[in-house]
Amino acid sequence: MKITIGQIQMNVSQNKDENLEKARDMIQEVVKQGAKIIVLPEMFNCPYQAKNFPVYAEMQGEQTHQFLSNLAKEHEIYIVGGSIPERTVDNQIYNTCYIFDPSGNQIGKHRKTHLFDIQIKGKIAFRESDTLTPGEGVTIVDTIYGKIGVMICYDIRFPEFSRKMALMGAKAIIIPGAFNMTTGPAHWELTFRARAVDNQVFMIGTAPARQYDMGYVSYGHSIVVSPWGEVITCLDENEGILLTDVDLDLVEDVREQLPLLKHRREELY
Amino acid sequence: MKITIGQIQMNVSQNKDENLEKARDMIQEVVKQGAKIIVLPEMFNCPYQAKNFPVYAEMQGEQTHQFLSNLAKEHEIYIVGGSIPERTVDNQIYNTCYIFDPSGNQIGKHRKTHLFDIQIKGKIAFRESDTLTPGEGVTIVDTIYGKIGVMICYDIRFPEFSRKMALMGAKAIIIPGAFNMTTGPAHWELTFRARAVDNQVFMIGTAPARQYDMGYVSYGHSIVVSPWGEVITCLDENEGILLTDVDLDLVEDVREQLPLLKHRREELY
Repeated sequence: MKITIGQIQMNVSQNKDENLEKARDMIQEVVKQGAKIIVLPEMFNCPYQAKNFPVYAEMQGEQTHQFLSNLAKEHEIYIVGGSIPERTVDNQIYNTCYIFDPSGNQIGKHRKTHLFDIQIKGKIAFRESDTLTPGEGVTIVDTIYGKIGVMICYDIRFPEFSRKMALMGAKAIIIPGAFNMTTGPAHWELTFRARAVDNQVFMIGTAPARQYDMGYVSYGHSIVVSPWGEVITCLDENEGILLTDVDLDLVEDVREQLPLLKHRREELY
Repeated sequence: MKITIGQIQMNVSQNKDENLEKARDMIQEVVKQGAKIIVLPEMFNCPYQAKNFPVYAEMQGEQTHQFLSNLAKEHEIYIVGGSIPERTVDNQIYNTCYIFDPSGNQIGKHRKTHLFDIQIKGKIAFRESDTLTPGEGVTIVDTIYGKIGVMICYDIRFPEFSRKMALMGAKAIIIPGAFNMTTGPAHWELTFRARAVDNQVFMIGTAPARQYDMGYVSYGHSIVVSPWGEVITCLDENEGILLTDVDLDLVEDVREQLPLLKHRREELY
């Protein structure tokens, strides 16, 4: 089953409406070029800073949710809506990805499950848990192309999470994410390739573009990796779109030749 | 805790005695250069072919086992004895790594737990299960330098296995292994780096040298990777030794800055 993935590596400004307009324009462009599944970056409507999350947060069904649903319906495409800060009725804030089908219906929702709290000496410190609540597990959506897993950024660090998705039938895993200038060069490509090879799935990561004037500087480098671990396409750090043709049948092909999932000794782990 | 690792990337001939002599000479060389833990490659006394395993197999305590024990005692070093075919009293054959302390005592033994049965179209086919029985789980040894995990080659493909070792306290994982000319260029370095980054451990892999006239052509590239995922040292394909100074305290340092093991959501996997 062949399909074109369209990724939106966009700059994110302080102005939410501007961010939505930009997303709309870039989505129109990848749709024009044939994309059927569109992936936005993590926190595409809100500059990635813990203090911003409560300020930009919306309830499900509000502005950004409605905006994405409308675009999916208008263009008859799947949208994996990057992520936005979601506020709940009991005033919790989550880092949430909404997923819409070509009718504009929400078919899934992932709340970032592993919060990003790190402190690398002289390099970078960040504490999502200052303002965010963690989600509660794995998200898989059914599409006409097959099952697709969705996680957000730091979730990819935990091999158990991708493994679970693969065992639940995911043929691709989509990850809105924003690695930074320390972890990005060191681990971004490596981690996408590793999850791809270990689980024999396509790994698709969409990052915000790099903006040096932001509090958190994104590494960029939106990427698509094959089930054999090859980087199929990758952007640099600049704002741009990425179109990639993937053949999901390659998953079964690789698994037949190198039957890693069959060779697991589950009783021993 | 600083320590020098010595790796023996040797050619393997049809002649077992010749293989042991070569191992002895190369071990003497790395000891002279300060190595305290010596790692031999997978199947260092037997050309890596399923049909050879029953022919070269020995019971525990026989020639090669005694040879390694004596060398460890003579040089007062740890030896992670690559692997050899082990025959049991009930005539099963295992791909086995014996581990000796500086007194020559066996402190651990790993039987390859995931057997290598693959068939990559037009590239490589191999079926260890034609002659081998799989081992039954994780192996960790206690050394004066800390806990070290030991696995063999294809075992590294399964992220659960390395993860279990890290959770059991391993600060380094040592892997005698022989990737081939298809899987080696594609996945050898990637897999070592991935396990290192995900588990924040040192990963140490020792391969046989490449010999194009062998039935199974080893990729070589014996390697040491840091807990941050950096390749510290790596050989090319030729016969040679590799000496690497590692500081096992780096494990705690990396885990403090990027607390991946603490951030696991174990209840969800």
